[in-house]
Parts: sequence; C-alpha cells; structure tokens
Amino acid sequence: MLYFRNDYGTGAHPAVLEALCRTNMEATPGYGTDPYCLEAAETIRSLCRCPGAAVHFLVGGTQVNKTAIAAFLRPYEAVIAAASGHICVHEAGSVEQDGHTVLRLTSPDGKLTPELLYDAMRGPVSEHTVIPRLAYISNTTELGTVYSRSELRSLRKTCDRLDLLLYCDGARLGSAMDAGGTEFSDYAENCDAFTIGGTKNGLLFGEALVIVNPALQPHFRNCMKQQGAMLAKGRLLGVQFGAILRDGLYLSLAAHANSLAKRLSEGLEKLGVPLLVPAESNQIFPILPDGVVETLRQAVEFEVERKTDETHTCVRFVTAWHTPAEAVDALLALMEKSLK
Amino acid sequence: MLYFRNDYGTGAHPAVLEALCRTNMEATPGYGTDPYCLEAAETIRSLCRCPGAAVHFLVGGTQVNKTAIAAFLRPYEAVIAAASGHICVHEAGSVEQDGHTVLRLTSPDGKLTPELLYDAMRGPVSEHTVIPRLAYISNTTELGTVYSRSELRSLRKTCDRLDLLLYCDGARLGSAMDAGGTEFSDYAENCDAFTIGGTKNGLLFGEALVIVNPALQPHFRNCMKQQGAMLAKGRLLGVQFGAILRDGLYLSLAAHANSLAKRLSEGLEKLGVPLLVPAESNQIFPILPDGVVETLRQAVEFEVERKTDETHTCVRFVTAWHTPAEAVDALLALMEKSLK
Amino acid sequence: MLYFRNDYGTGAHPAVLEALCRTNMEATPGYGTDPYCLEAAETIRSLCRCPGAAVHFLVGGTQVNKTAIAAFLRPYEAVIAAASGHICVHEAGSVEQDGHTVLRLTSPDGKLTPELLYDAMRGPVSEHTVIPRLAYISNTTELGTVYSRSELRSLRKTCDRLDLLLYCDGARLGSAMDAGGTEFSDYAENCDAFTIGGTKNGLLFGEALVIVNPALQPHFRNCMKQQGAMLAKGRLLGVQFGAILRDGLYLSLAAHANSLAKRLSEGLEKLGVPLLVPAESNQIFPILPDGVVETLRQAVEFEVERKTDETHTCVRFVTAWHTPAEAVDALLALMEKSLK
Amino acid sequence: MLYFRNDYGTGAHPAVLEALCRTNMEATPGYGTDPYCLEAAETIRSLCRCPGAAVHFLVGGTQVNKTAIAAFLRPYEAVIAAASGHICVHEAGSVEQDGHTVLRLTSPDGKLTPELLYDAMRGPVSEHTVIPRLAYISNTTELGTVYSRSELRSLRKTCDRLDLLLYCDGARLGSAMDAGGTEFSDYAENCDAFTIGGTKNGLLFGEALVIVNPALQPHFRNCMKQQGAMLAKGRLLGVQFGAILRDGLYLSLAAHANSLAKRLSEGLEKLGVPLLVPAESNQIFPILPDGVVETLRQAVEFEVERKTDETHTCVRFVTAWHTPAEAVDALLALMEKSLK
Repeated sequence: MLYFRNDYGTGAHPAVLEALCRTNMEATPGYGTDPYCLEAAETIRSLCRCPGAAVHFLVGGTQVNKTAIAAFLRPYEAVIAAASGHICVHEAGSVEQDGHTVLRLTSPDGKLTPELLYDAMRGPVSEHTVIPRLAYISNTTELGTVYSRSELRSLRKTCDRLDLLLYCDGARLGSAMDAGGTEFSDYAENCDAFTIGGTKNGLLFGEALVIVNPALQPHFRNCMKQQGAMLAKGRLLGVQFGAILRDGLYLSLAAHANSLAKRLSEGLEKLGVPLLVPAESNQIFPILPDGVVETLRQAVEFEVERKTDETHTCVRFVTAWHTPAEAVDALLALMEKSLK
Repeated sequence: MLYFRNDYGTGAHPAVLEALCRTNMEATPGYGTDPYCLEAAETIRSLCRCPGAAVHFLVGGTQVNKTAIAAFLRPYEAVIAAASGHICVHEAGSVEQDGHTVLRLTSPDGKLTPELLYDAMRGPVSEHTVIPRLAYISNTTELGTVYSRSELRSLRKTCDRLDLLLYCDGARLGSAMDAGGTEFSDYAENCDAFTIGGTKNGLLFGEALVIVNPALQPHFRNCMKQQGAMLAKGRLLGVQFGAILRDGLYLSLAAHANSLAKRLSEGLEKLGVPLLVPAESNQIFPILPDGVVETLRQAVEFEVERKTDETHTCVRFVTAWHTPAEAVDALLALMEKSLK
Repeated sequence: MLYFRNDYGTGAHPAVLEALCRTNMEATPGYGTDPYCLEAAETIRSLCRCPGAAVHFLVGGTQVNKTAIAAFLRPYEAVIAAASGHICVHEAGSVEQDGHTVLRLTSPDGKLTPELLYDAMRGPVSEHTVIPRLAYISNTTELGTVYSRSELRSLRKTCDRLDLLLYCDGARLGSAMDAGGTEFSDYAENCDAFTIGGTKNGLLFGEALVIVNPALQPHFRNCMKQQGAMLAKGRLLGVQFGAILRDGLYLSLAAHANSLAKRLSEGLEKLGVPLLVPAESNQIFPILPDGVVETLRQAVEFEVERKTDETHTCVRFVTAWHTPAEAVDALLALMEKSLK
Repeated sequence: MLYFRNDYGTGAHPAVLEALCRTNMEATPGYGTDPYCLEAAETIRSLCRCPGAAVHFLVGGTQVNKTAIAAFLRPYEAVIAAASGHICVHEAGSVEQDGHTVLRLTSPDGKLTPELLYDAMRGPVSEHTVIPRLAYISNTTELGTVYSRSELRSLRKTCDRLDLLLYCDGARLGSAMDAGGTEFSDYAENCDAFTIGGTKNGLLFGEALVIVNPALQPHFRNCMKQQGAMLAKGRLLGVQFGAILRDGLYLSLAAHANSLAKRLSEGLEKLGVPLLVPAESNQIFPILPDGVVETLRQAVEFEVERKTDETHTCVRFVTAWHTPAEAVDALLALMEKSLK
C-alpha cells in the first residue's frame, strides 16, 4: 500500500531514535527538569532569538492547546478560531471542557484575517457575553494553507488593537516555515505563544510550547501537572527535541515533505485534477471522481475529506519526512490510469 | 418616558405581591421543600398532564439553563442551538463554563428545524469530536418567533431519530403559548425538559424547570445546590408560582402583552414600517430610519437590535403584562410624526 | 411550635417588604444597574470607609462564595478553610465544581488561626501540587463562634506573609459584628473581599459582595453572569439592602437575635446544660439527653447537630431578628421540665 | 552516585526499547487503533480473565487518574481517598479541576479500610452535599504498603454496600502483585476499574486502564480525546505493553525491585534503623539521624519524606527493575559507616 494517510503514522527519524537509545539508561531528574530539556529549551530560545521565552515540552497537540489556553484565559474569556480549526473539530471540545467558549468563524481557506477578527469583535461585547481574548491560528492550517511573515505581522497588529492574544498551533510548523519562508523568530515576534510540533515531523511524540508573553508564563508548570500534561520521564522530550533541532534537521525534514507534496500537486495539475484549496504545504486536497477514489482505495491509504458533489469526493494526501519520491510517482501513475 | 425596553423592568403582578406579603412571616422549611413549592409543583404537573415530571423552582433564566444542561450531559456531549439563542449570546458562556460545547447554527428566524438538526448531525462525529446530545430551543425565540404544536412534534420526532434530548427555554413560555396555541402539555409531551418563565410574565423572579424524562431526574437537587441555584427561602418561588398559575393568570398576562404587541405591529404596518422578522409575540423588531430612532430616544425606552444598513436601524419594542394600550398608541403617534 | 430551626425560615423585615411594595411598578434598568443598587453600593462603601471597593449584589450564599472564589483564583490555586466551613460541607462541592481544591483544616471551634494557616502552608508546595491562595473564613462561623477585630488583623498579617487572599463569608455578618464588636470597616481593612449577608438578617434574599482588593475587581460582572448569578430584576436587591442598611436596622436586628441567644444560653447555663462550643452569637449548640431531645421535638422546631455519645445529642437552636423573648422563655421552661 | 531517588528516572527495559526500534517505521492507524494496541488489550483481558473489560492505553499516571475519574462521575459525585493518596497530593488538584471533590481520609499506612469507608459515609449526605461515589486506592500505596487479595475483597464488599465504585491506581501494580501475592484477575474481580502502570516498571511511559464495569465503558475514548490523553502514535503504547507483558517480564521486573528493597530493609533492620511504615514493596522509608542524611547526600540520590523530630529525618529509598544488588550493598555500607 502507498501511504498518504497522514504524517504521524510511523515512528521517529533515525537520529531521534538513536538519541533515545543512547540515553536510555541515564538517570536524570524527572518531569522535564533534566539537562536535556534545559538544553533543548535553550536551543529553542536561541533559534527564536527570544531569551525571555518560557519553553515547555508536552506530549501531544490537543494536550498542549488545551493546557495553554486554559492557563492563559480567565473564566469568561473566549477564543476566536476558524471553524475548520483543530480545536473546533478534532479535539472533542477540550477547550470548552476547561470552561472557555470558542467562537468559530467561517473561513474558506482555514485562515484568520484581520477582517475576520474585526468582524468577530464587532458583535455585542458586554457584561452579559463572553469576551474574546485569544485568537487561535494554526500554521499550517488544517487545509494545508500557510501564513506568511507579513500575514503574521498583520494579525499581530490587529490583535494589539483588539486586545487579543495571538496563539499559533504549530503542529506542522516546520512545513509552514519551509512553505511560507518564515523563521522561528517570526513566531516569537508576533505570537504571545506558539508550539513547535514534533509528532508530525520526525519525533515519536512531542510539542514544544514557547510562551513569549511574560504575563502568561508564571506557574504554567502547575497548570501542566494539573492537566496531566507533565511527562514523568520528561527527558524523552528534551532528548528528542535536542536531536531534531540539531543541524537544521527539523526544517530539512519538513522541506522534504513539502517538496514531495509539490511534486504531487504539480502532477495533479498536469492530470487536470482540481484542488479544494491551493497546494501550499504537505497536505493536498484533490477533488476526484468517486470511481477514481474507489480504485485508489485498493492500493493507497488516504483520508476522505468530504463529498463535494454527487459524483466527486475531496480526499486528502499527506506527505511526510519519510515519504519516498517513488510513492508519489506511483500514486500519480495510478491516478492517471484511473482517470482515463 | 414610554417603556418598551423589556418585560422584566418592573416588579410583580399585584396578586403575586399580595401572596408574598400575606405569607411573609410564615415559618416554613427552606430550599424549596415547603408546602407552597410542593403545591405549585403539583399544579404544574397537573397543567402539564404529566404526573411523573420532576418540577424545580430556580431564580433566573441563565441559572436554570446552565444548571439543567450541565446536569443532563456527560462531559463530551454538546448542545445544538440557533446562533441567536440566549445561551449563545447573552449568558456569558455559561454552558461552556460547565464544560459543554454549544454548536451554533445559523437560523434567520431564530428557530431550529428538523433540517437544521439533520445538518448539524451530518458533520463528522467520532471519538475525536464532541457528540451533539441536546437541542436547545426557546419559545418564544429571542426574535419573538414562535413554535407551533406541529413544529414541536416534528422536532421531537427528529430528536428521537438523532438520539437528541429536546430542551425548551420557556423564559417567555406564556407568550409562546398564547401566540402559538400551544398548551403546557405540548411541552411535556415533546420535550425532555422545559422551563416556565416567571420573571418576564408577572413574577419578581422565578423559572420553573419541568424535567419530563425520568432518566434526567435523579439527583437534580444536588446539581442545583452545587450551582448555587437553590434559594434558601425557596418558599418565595412556590408562593409566586402558586399565585400566577391560579385562575389562568399566567396565560392572561401573556395574552395581554401579545395583544398590545399586535396593536403595535398592526400600527407599524399601517405606517409602512418593515419588520426584521414577522411579529408573532410580544417582541417587535421594526426597521426605522436612523433619524426616527434618534427622535424616539427622547420619549421612549427601547433597545437597539442592530444597524441594518447605512441609514436604518432595527430596534426592539417589548410589551409586557402591564403595558397600557395608551402607551402603544402614543408610541405609534410619535412614530407617525417622526416618519413624515 | 416554637421556632428555633434557623434564621431564614420566614420572610423579610416589614421595612424591607414595604420598600419592595412601594417600588414594585417602577421601571428601572435591569441586572443591578438601577439607581437603588447604585445607592446601596454607595452606602456600603461609605459604611466600610472604603471608597474604592466594588460592591455587587447576589441572591444567595453558596452562589456568592462560588462566584467570588472562581473569579479570584487561577486554575491551580486552592482554598484553605476550616473543615466545618460552609463551603466544605453544605455547598455540594460548588468550589470544586469550578475547579478549585479546598484544603480542609481541623478546627474545634470552626475558626482559622494564624497557626493553622502556617501549618497548611508548611506542606509541600511545588509544581506538582495545588498552591493555597485564599483563606476562607466565615464570621460568625458555622458553630456560632466569632472573630474579633484583633483576630481579623492577625489573620490579615498572616495572609500577607503567606501571600494568601483573605475572604470572609458574612452570611451572618450582622451577628458577628454585634457579638464581636467589629464594624464594617474592619472587614474592608482586613479582607480582600467579604460578604454582607441579608438572607439571614431581615431580607427575603440577598448577599452583598464587597471586593476591596482592586486586583480582584475587573470583569467580576461577567463572572456573575456566567455563573447565572446576575438577577434580572436586580433592583430587588438594591431596594432591600437600601432598606436594611438605613438607620442601623441591619445591626439592630442582629443585636436582637444575639440578645435572645444570650438569654437562651444563660438559661441553659442555669439548667446545667453543657454547650458544644461557647455561646457567642445567635446559634447555640446545647448537648442534651436523648430523651429531652425527643420531648422537645413535640413542641419545638430545631436541627440536630450530631450524637455526642450514646445517650446525648447536640442540637442547634437559632434565634432570629423576629424571635420573641417569650419563645425563648417557653423553650427554657420546656427544657427545665424535661430535664427533671 | 548511587541512585535510589525513584523508579522512573531512567528509560525502558531493553526488550521494550528493542520492540520500539523494530517497529519504528511501520505505518499503522493512529490513536491506539493499531494492531499492537488491539493485541496488548487482548493480552490484558486474558491475563485478567475478564473478556468484557475495556482496555485503554494512556501516557501518564495523573492523566489516567484524572481522565477516568472525570469520565466515571456525575458533577456532584465525590472521591474518597487516603490523605496521602497521589491524587490528594501530587497531582496538582487535577481531580478537582474537573469538578469533583476529593474527601481526604487520615490513614497512617496510606491504605483505605472498610472502617474508613464507613466513617466517610457516616457524615451528612444530602441534597446540600457532595455524594461520595468512588473510592480511590493505589496499590502499592504512596507509602509502599500493599493490599492483599483479602483486603481487596473486603473493600469490594464494602463498596457494594455503600454504593461506591472501587478504583485502583496501579502505577506500581507489578510491585503490589509480587509483594502481596495478587494476580491481575484479583483487580478485575474486585475493582470497577484499575490501571497497570508501565512508567515505573520498565516502559518509557504508559499506563493501561482496565475498565471492568460495563456501565463505565461507553464513550471513554471521547473523554480521553477531550482530556488531551489520546496519543497520536498510539502504537507506541501497544508495542511497549506487548513487550513488557510477554513471558512474565512485567512481574519479574517488579520482583527484582522488590527483592532488592527487601535486601535493603533487612540490612537496615540489622543496623537498627527504624522505618516509618513496614517495608512491603519497592519503597523504603527509613528514619535517620540528620547527620547521616547529610552524609548520604554526597554519594546517594534519594528523596526526603519529612522531618520526624528535631534530629531525625525520614527519607525514601526506591529500588527499580534495574537497580543492581551492589548498589544496595554499597548504600548499606555507607549507612553503617555513618551511623557509627
């Protein structure tokens, strides 16, 4: 089977696995207070050019989003997000479970814009309503679209005007940086907090949370513990991030995934297959005749996004750091054959 | 000043106040276990033709919605509501504060329909999502529109098919019953739980919650207490509901409010003033030239709903059980003059 | 039946009821923004000699405790309270429902002391624990004991050293002030926030929350609304507090209750009846032979506190603003007869 | 440095690590739906002789306790636990964060008994209180004490009588089984749910939750997701549990740790060192002169439990699956020298 289902179906990059094996029997302090975590945090602060940032390592994406948002907001404060955002759909209401309303905005490409934020804040805000306080974006978005540096800056300015915190879910930050030409420091400059996703880019698991805004930093580790989000053998996270952030590995893995997605989308273009949204990163959303989708199922693993009309279906192909070029070519060949 | 701001700006109907004064120094058990509450609950069960219903008396509308929904749902279960619903806008995120997501559906007239419910349930429901479990409606809606008996029945059938609970916020239930020709028993037949609103129809305060579905009844009073929703001198609620439910007073007060709203809407029609939604109950939403709105402000209390275009504003006029016909005529006269 | 069950079994003082009746049909803004609430808040600020205090009016005691504590604390912050405290026993876990741990300290007389606070803070406090942040006291306590001015000051100093907020539940504040010689300003000087209880001292319902600490004031009304704790006809609270705070009525009602409790405890002393804790305010806890308790049940309403040994039971007698001296004398006569 | 700080300071047993490396690049479905998780769950059901059990794999101990308890209880239901229990002290109030009160019982050896449960249920339980619903035990306890089969049975009977669920936190279940002669099936027979801890017995991370009671099983995975407790690469948990449960490895690792703890406690006995509680499993709590503690610090890693008097301190020594006998002997030699 060709594998285009997602970017977290396999294990870790060899360098990451090697580091885990090498340090396996070292006895270190627990809960992320070990030298590996301290060093990885320092590396991140340095990459972000943000010496004052607090850096925490958590296991998963829903966990880090939920823990951060609950820690940052007062009870009546709400989140603004695109309706397609991960916290709106695929996190089982975890932000609401901690008491916070998520206001879902319709956005065709999954991105928030200054206009959407202004619109959201135009509604009645009073003592009888929640008060929107945090804009949640993800880069890349769930539709594979990408925020550029200028878009991030423009959101930052809007958030400043509207007294909103800006939080970026970077589950696929490597892919976003490669595709959009942004650097770690762009996120530190423009966000109050953001994550650097490891699970989908070479780690067994792990998301680094970078809290830039000093007002949001105190006692975050108590919040982590309370949410069950402090890994006992925290070293595992520090070791993995240490390995993946060395020598630009994080970005080169993402670049590989993006380049194969590009190879795929260019092939689709040649085949005349329309896309739901423009191909920008490692997730591609072609709209295919239902018959083709059925044929592909025999030989390819992928997810169905949704029916787009009576005879067509939008599917999702995801490339990863380990996807071989041959797999892309084989997929394109399969489609070419089926489309005839 | 003419008063059309809302239906809870003044106090209680004389019969209610008299009952409170008459019983003031009686010593009764607290927390709603007194004979007045027991009798009022029995009256409600009888009016609803539902001897198995659990009836609880709470102080306010947000309180009763929040307490009931939190008691009825498991943590991952969500609410479906019209985006204009009271819990979506004017309750400061109280349902979410207790951990539950509210899925907000766009509905021009503020009502849920079977189609909207089917649409809401069509989305991906899985282990990664919330599971919609309770459909929240209010009758009358926040736009003054009204569910008829057949609409309630149709929602019930849909909820049965979709495994949804049906909850009706009856903050203005009297007005809805008068306008839509429904009876208490229609709500008992079709809803899993509903409220009979007193605050907006002759009481100082008070909402009766009728829990029809036996599975939702156990330990509700512990939930009330935990939510701070159990009134120490609970008798005040039983005494008031006893007074307002006697001799059809509840319905006749609502009928009065509705009839004056009708007088007003008919007058507006003659003046050629368009309405945001058809006038069905005691809330009227005319769209007026901004200049007229400004003029009215000098002599009338009312709320602004929203700007509808650059030169027009939709306002809300509310009639109540104590609104005099003269006030309606004076308001119409004022508008006639300003519109010239 | 003689009535010594509690101090909230009947209705309102005539002056309060009269004020409610007199203002019944006035149309005012809702939710506590009316002139009566504004004036009553101003009166309280003046009585407290604390012009910067925020004053809010809520309906009930559990509601105000829950709403205030949830508004004041971050998620990992905990409350310290005597194990007999109202929030520990009789509020159905409402503080925990909002996410906060309550650390329950054993205290024979129901009071917190500096020593108890130091002890509570001596335990391990780290990233893995809750962080105690708010000391909850009630004056009078659930055992009728009373904090004096110097005790309040001493708690304040301790809280300052331990970085704790001091919150006083004043459900029976009038009784505490009369018994302990404290004034409203003592609470404003020593507490970060406190309540002035109306339900148990002459109102139909109502607790005034005084937030002295400016850091705790912002957006409290959003928290109230979210908790379902904002009364639609908020005026009812302002009118009642206005009436009870006029001409020292609040204190004179409490003094009446206390003086009758004193008459009762002195009579018990003469009869040789031991008390669970010294009689200090309007709640008396005599320990009686079981046979006497059974006899009293025929003619007196009261609550049983608990069995103290195989043949004795501690009961609670509560006097109120409306308790007649004759009732106390009749109760003493009954006991004298049964004890023979 | 000799290492006796804890049993989670290092990495995984070689067999576990080997399994992770071997399967690293296999592409499997995510979130614990892969064949490795399914097989490990089946193995656990078989070991427990409980074909109807639901088995879930979570990353950490606080996470699994919090997620299970929140999923099992209604809002007003409370937990009963020994005051020294992990959820009472070291989980940052995570059970309360989800809304549930934890009633903390004093227990010198950290164990719950039928008597303690009866006592806890003797208090006033009413509409105004929380309702205790789940008894939380851990085996071994935080003090290293162990429940035997008959103790588990006796707790089960008591829970049945008191309508309590019995939940066993098995973070150190292997050690408890080896020390107390219990088998997996004892937990399935007597508990409504329990965990099999991996983190402290040979895994990188991972706790298996076994839900025996069918009423507690539905929709647990939605609760997991909502709590951020569903690992994307869930396979990592199935692979690890598969490896550790093969050929009795789980129990033999625990037996090794226990045997070295025994060697240590016997040595301490010879040296005349008193223990805080009898040595039963892999945690030993000797009470040492302060001078000895200071000396040990130079060469040994361990935790301080607490000061026991002015000149003595109770410390904790923990042995693990990888502790060498030589380390125990070296520790005893050090103490012998210091104690002279």
